[in-house]
Amino acid sequence: MLHLLITVGDVAGIGPEIIVKAWPTLTSFCVPVVVGSPAWMAKTVSGLGSTSQVREISRIRDARGEAGVIECYDPVGVDLSGVEVGTITEAGGRAAYEYLCTAIDSVLAGEADGLVTAPLHKEGLHLAGVRHPGHTEILAERTGTGEFAMVLWGDGLAVAHVTLHMALRDVFRHITTPAIVEKIRLLDGLLTRLLDRRPRIAVAALNPHGSDGGLFGSEEATIIAPAVALGRAEGIEVSGPFPTDTLFVRAGRGEFDGIVAMYHDAGHIAMKLRCGSRAVNISAGLPIVRTSVAHGTAYDIAGRGIADPGSLIEAARVACKLCDR
Amino acid sequence: MLHLLITVGDVAGIGPEIIVKAWPTLTSFCVPVVVGSPAWMAKTVSGLGSTSQVREISRIRDARGEAGVIECYDPVGVDLSGVEVGTITEAGGRAAYEYLCTAIDSVLAGEADGLVTAPLHKEGLHLAGVRHPGHTEILAERTGTGEFAMVLWGDGLAVAHVTLHMALRDVFRHITTPAIVEKIRLLDGLLTRLLDRRPRIAVAALNPHGSDGGLFGSEEATIIAPAVALGRAEGIEVSGPFPTDTLFVRAGRGEFDGIVAMYHDAGHIAMKLRCGSRAVNISAGLPIVRTSVAHGTAYDIAGRGIADPGSLIEAARVACKLCDR
Repeated sequence: MLHLLITVGDVAGIGPEIIVKAWPTLTSFCVPVVVGSPAWMAKTVSGLGSTSQVREISRIRDARGEAGVIECYDPVGVDLSGVEVGTITEAGGRAAYEYLCTAIDSVLAGEADGLVTAPLHKEGLHLAGVRHPGHTEILAERTGTGEFAMVLWGDGLAVAHVTLHMALRDVFRHITTPAIVEKIRLLDGLLTRLLDRRPRIAVAALNPHGSDGGLFGSEEATIIAPAVALGRAEGIEVSGPFPTDTLFVRAGRGEFDGIVAMYHDAGHIAMKLRCGSRAVNISAGLPIVRTSVAHGTAYDIAGRGIADPGSLIEAARVACKLCDR
Repeated sequence: MLHLLITVGDVAGIGPEIIVKAWPTLTSFCVPVVVGSPAWMAKTVSGLGSTSQVREISRIRDARGEAGVIECYDPVGVDLSGVEVGTITEAGGRAAYEYLCTAIDSVLAGEADGLVTAPLHKEGLHLAGVRHPGHTEILAERTGTGEFAMVLWGDGLAVAHVTLHMALRDVFRHITTPAIVEKIRLLDGLLTRLLDRRPRIAVAALNPHGSDGGLFGSEEATIIAPAVALGRAEGIEVSGPFPTDTLFVRAGRGEFDGIVAMYHDAGHIAMKLRCGSRAVNISAGLPIVRTSVAHGTAYDIAGRGIADPGSLIEAARVACKLCDR
């Protein structure tokens, strides 16, 4: 079976809990290995009243993938003694970053087949002096990837974002024809692998009503439409730009397999409403397979035992599909 | 029963068709009166193979509200001979504008109880030399209203928008603390009438993740949070700002009755996905009751007989609820 690394992310969030809950299911279709603190995982198991064991392994390929044994790989050993559940700390941010870097390097080195990440907290990263705003950017830098996209996937629809973790007022200088063409290509490549056929892709507008023929903004005509034309010229089945609000309704009726959205909330509002905990985050364009839960650290419910492991399980299934070529 | 004026909007769109289809249902709970061309309505009835009659009336209060007789009031008489279904024309835009102005004036004069509008086409208005981008702005000017809000309502949730029909890059200079407080007040007033109790209102963030503590933008801390504090100081049950993508999921679970969204697509992406044709548009803050369908002219399906009258029927029901105090 495929070996998947599961990073715990920010230990103060719900990452450890959803891993413990998902574990028996994960071992039914892959060999999962936690990248994170065995002591913290043992504390989480105990807090949940689970009967699972926690075992530290020193080599990823030693993992056996048993339903009752949570195997942890932790060559980093960040001191988590000062970290409390539901609290932002420098140590929690540093540990999350170190676990992620270790996991990326291990998959790049061929020690595992793919990577699934639990959520980290951006303010924790910031406290730890990490200048990247999130997973996607760290993955891109560490794997030396110039062109990549964060894709949300769920219920048969994938959304790639042209801009992501930035203030809304900053998106305008990042929305360019080449940037949109790049996301169209990445989404086409990813969906071809996921669906085993060429996908139908739609590009969302930036302005309300897709600018209503130029009445509210010009980016549709000057930037987005030329990107769609370039994509079509490359043989990609892509159309648009379409008004974003009705586009998601049309996709829900089955008109499209993928959407290129211009900014974070356009894609996330729709996908969180459509799919809830079935939504999965996929990094397209990396040299390694990486998927993630589509939710955050959820500090407000961390430690209460009510977190839903659905997105983590689905993320691992999608990672296996992408590894298994 | 209450008399509701129903403007046909842009006759080249699906407005006339959904009125014909909705008519028998509308007459079960109100006396509807079409403001629009009787000749065009007769052509629509014929095209749909309907057995309804069309009757022109010269005074609104003459209407009888019969299921099989579509009563039209048309003191304007714009020449529609050059208008074709599914096409933008100056005459179509001008007629839509004139019907709307007539209807507004009639309700202001007490000749009818409320106004329900079918969609118009903004490019048609533009061709006709009307400088307003849509219904809401025309209604505000003609009724002399300074503070108003376009609210989407459906399945127990209302969304008020701080900015609406403008390019996304223009929203930043319109998002101010006073503008947000105004929308909080208007939404609180509207929902109190709709629900017969004080509502729970949440204010959405502008930036992704609600700026993640200031990492991606500052408007949450400097502009939005102060507006929420001012609303609370007035006794309104309002909280936020919350990240927009998860806020709509929380509202779906019943945590909130109303959301104040910062820009058009934030509210519209969510409400069109949640409610489809059950969504209704309400103008809050006007001296008259006015509701509308939440969809556009749908030129792509106009004349094909497949348009859904659901939103129009729901809009009329909500108008009756708001009139009946």
